[in-house]
Amino acid sequence: MKALVIDKGKIAFIEKPVPQIAANEALVKVLVAGICNTDLEIERGYMGFSGTPGHEFVGVVEKCSQAGLIGQRIVGEINHGCGNCDRCKKDLSRHCPNRSVLGIVNKDGAFAEYLSLPIKNLHIVNKSISDEQSVFTEPLAAAFEIPEQVHIKPGMDVLVFGDGKLAQLIARVLKLNSAKVVVIGKHETKLKLLERFSIETKLLSEFKPRQSPITIEATGSIEGFELAVKCTQPRGTLVLKSTVADSEKFNLSPLVIDEIAVIGSRCGPFSPALGALEKGSVIVEDLISKTFRFEDAIAAFDYAKKPGVLKVLLDMR
Amino acid sequence: MKALVIDKGKIAFIEKPVPQIAANEALVKVLVAGICNTDLEIERGYMGFSGTPGHEFVGVVEKCSQAGLIGQRIVGEINHGCGNCDRCKKDLSRHCPNRSVLGIVNKDGAFAEYLSLPIKNLHIVNKSISDEQSVFTEPLAAAFEIPEQVHIKPGMDVLVFGDGKLAQLIARVLKLNSAKVVVIGKHETKLKLLERFSIETKLLSEFKPRQSPITIEATGSIEGFELAVKCTQPRGTLVLKSTVADSEKFNLSPLVIDEIAVIGSRCGPFSPALGALEKGSVIVEDLISKTFRFEDAIAAFDYAKKPGVLKVLLDMR
Repeated sequence: MKALVIDKGKIAFIEKPVPQIAANEALVKVLVAGICNTDLEIERGYMGFSGTPGHEFVGVVEKCSQAGLIGQRIVGEINHGCGNCDRCKKDLSRHCPNRSVLGIVNKDGAFAEYLSLPIKNLHIVNKSISDEQSVFTEPLAAAFEIPEQVHIKPGMDVLVFGDGKLAQLIARVLKLNSAKVVVIGKHETKLKLLERFSIETKLLSEFKPRQSPITIEATGSIEGFELAVKCTQPRGTLVLKSTVADSEKFNLSPLVIDEIAVIGSRCGPFSPALGALEKGSVIVEDLISKTFRFEDAIAAFDYAKKPGVLKVLLDMR
Repeated sequence: MKALVIDKGKIAFIEKPVPQIAANEALVKVLVAGICNTDLEIERGYMGFSGTPGHEFVGVVEKCSQAGLIGQRIVGEINHGCGNCDRCKKDLSRHCPNRSVLGIVNKDGAFAEYLSLPIKNLHIVNKSISDEQSVFTEPLAAAFEIPEQVHIKPGMDVLVFGDGKLAQLIARVLKLNSAKVVVIGKHETKLKLLERFSIETKLLSEFKPRQSPITIEATGSIEGFELAVKCTQPRGTLVLKSTVADSEKFNLSPLVIDEIAVIGSRCGPFSPALGALEKGSVIVEDLISKTFRFEDAIAAFDYAKKPGVLKVLLDMR
C-alpha cells in the first residue's frame, strides 16, 4: 500500500505492506484524513516520531474478529493503553505510560491506505454524518475535554486565545455550555467564521487585556500563553490546550502571585463529539480550507502551513 | 525611628518619622521580625519595591482607635485590599488589584522600629506562643494555603521539592493531614530536621524520579519546577509555591500531554497557623538559624543568603 512517512524531519511516500492485525485489532481502510497542527509539529521533530503520521480519520473496517463491524464506517480513538497498569484499570488508558498513540507514538497513523487499531478504540459513525465531518471527531473530542476538566458555568466569561482550527472548535463547544465566549485572534477571516454562532470576537490588535475567570490558550505560541496568564483573574483557571515543540523563556511568578491554576488539556471523549456532529449542534464543515487527493499529500502539508489556512483534508476514496 | 530601606538593590539604614496612622489603622512597635526569601528577592529587584521590607513579624499595638487592642501582642496579615472592589467584597482582598502588601507592595514593612497596619489585619497572639514562634505565623499560613486550595487526602503520596524554610513548614503542615509526605532536598542537615516528625526525606542526588498525584515545588529554581513536572502523575496537581524573579527557559508541552494542573499558591489563612503554633502541632523553633540585633540587620541579610541557613530573625526588643 501507499503510505506517507516522516523520518528525521523528511516527509515522503513509500510502498509498504498492509498492516498485520492482532486478535484485538481491526484493519481499517482510510477514507478521509485530516492534517492537524501536531502533524506539522511532528514534521519539525516533536515527539521524535518516525513513521506514518495522521490521527484524524474516518475509515471502513475491512477485517476484524467481530463480524458485525466489517463494512462499518468508523472513527477511532488514538490512545491505546497496555490494559494492565493502574491507569488503564482506572479508565485512564489515555495516560498509560506504555501507550501507543496513532500517528504520534509507536503506531503508524492514518496517512496511508490502511491502518490498524484496537477494536475497542472504534466508534461507528451515524449515516447522517458525512465523511468530511467525521474527520473532525478527534479534534472536536479534544475540545470537549475542556468541560470534562473544568466546570464551565452558564453565562461564565471565557476568553479563548487563538482563532485556528482547535480554537474554533473550542469556542463552538463552550458556546454549547452557554458560556459568554470571546475569541481573540489575529485573522479577520477566521474570526468572521464565528459570527454565525453569535460568538463575540476581537482582533488581537484591538483587544484591551482584561481579566476573566477562565481563559483558554490555543494559539500555540508563548506570547499567547503570556497574554492568557495576564488575562486570567486571581484564583482563575487557564486551560493550556496547545503543545509547542520549543522551549521558551518566561516567568512563572504571576501564577503564584495570582494563585492561577494552569490545566493542561489533551485528548477528549469521542461520544459527545459524535453526538454534536449528529445533532448538528457543532458545525465543522466551514473549517475545511481545501481537500487534496492522497497522492498530493506532500503539497497538502505545505498548504497546511500557510497563514490563514484551517483544516486540510486528504481524500483516499 | 530607625528603619531599613531597599532602593534600587541597595540596602541601608535611615532615620525616618514614626508612621502616621489612619482611622482604621494601628501603630505597632515591632518586637521580632523574620527575613524571608522574598526579602532577598526584593533586594535583587523583585516587584520593583523600594522602601522598608519585612512582612514576618510580631509586635505590640501602641496606638489605635480600639482601646482594647492597645498593649496587645499581635501578628498581622500582610495584604490590604481597597475594600470596595468585587474581589474585596467576595472575601478575596488578598487578590485586590489595588492592594498594598506589607514590605512588598506600596507599604513599608517590619524591618523598622514601628509599622502601621489596618486593625482588621491584626490577630492577637496567645501568651503560650513565644515571640520567636509568632514570627512564623505568616509563612506557616502560606503553608496552610495548600490544603485550602487542594484536597489532600489521608495517606496520599505527596512529594515536596525543597528543604528550605517554606518547604519545611509545608511538609510539617501536610503531615497534619496524614499525607505520606516525602521531602526531596539538597541539604542533609536540613532534611535531618524532619526526622523527628517521621517525615520521609531523600537527598536529591539519591532520588529516583517517580510519579505522585500531588507535588509541591518549593525550591525556587527552574530545575526544581522541571523535576516536579516530571514527578507529577498524569491528571495530577503541582502546587507552585516559590516565586523566582528571573525568567527562565522551559517547555510547557509535558503539562498538556499529561494534563497536569499547576496551581500557584501564595499567602494563606492566619487562624489555622496560630492554632497550630498554640497547640504545638507544628514545631517551628528548630528552623531559626540565628537571631541578630536589629542594628545588625545588614549583616543578617548577608547571613541569610549563605547556603544551609534557614530562618534569620531580627530582634528589636
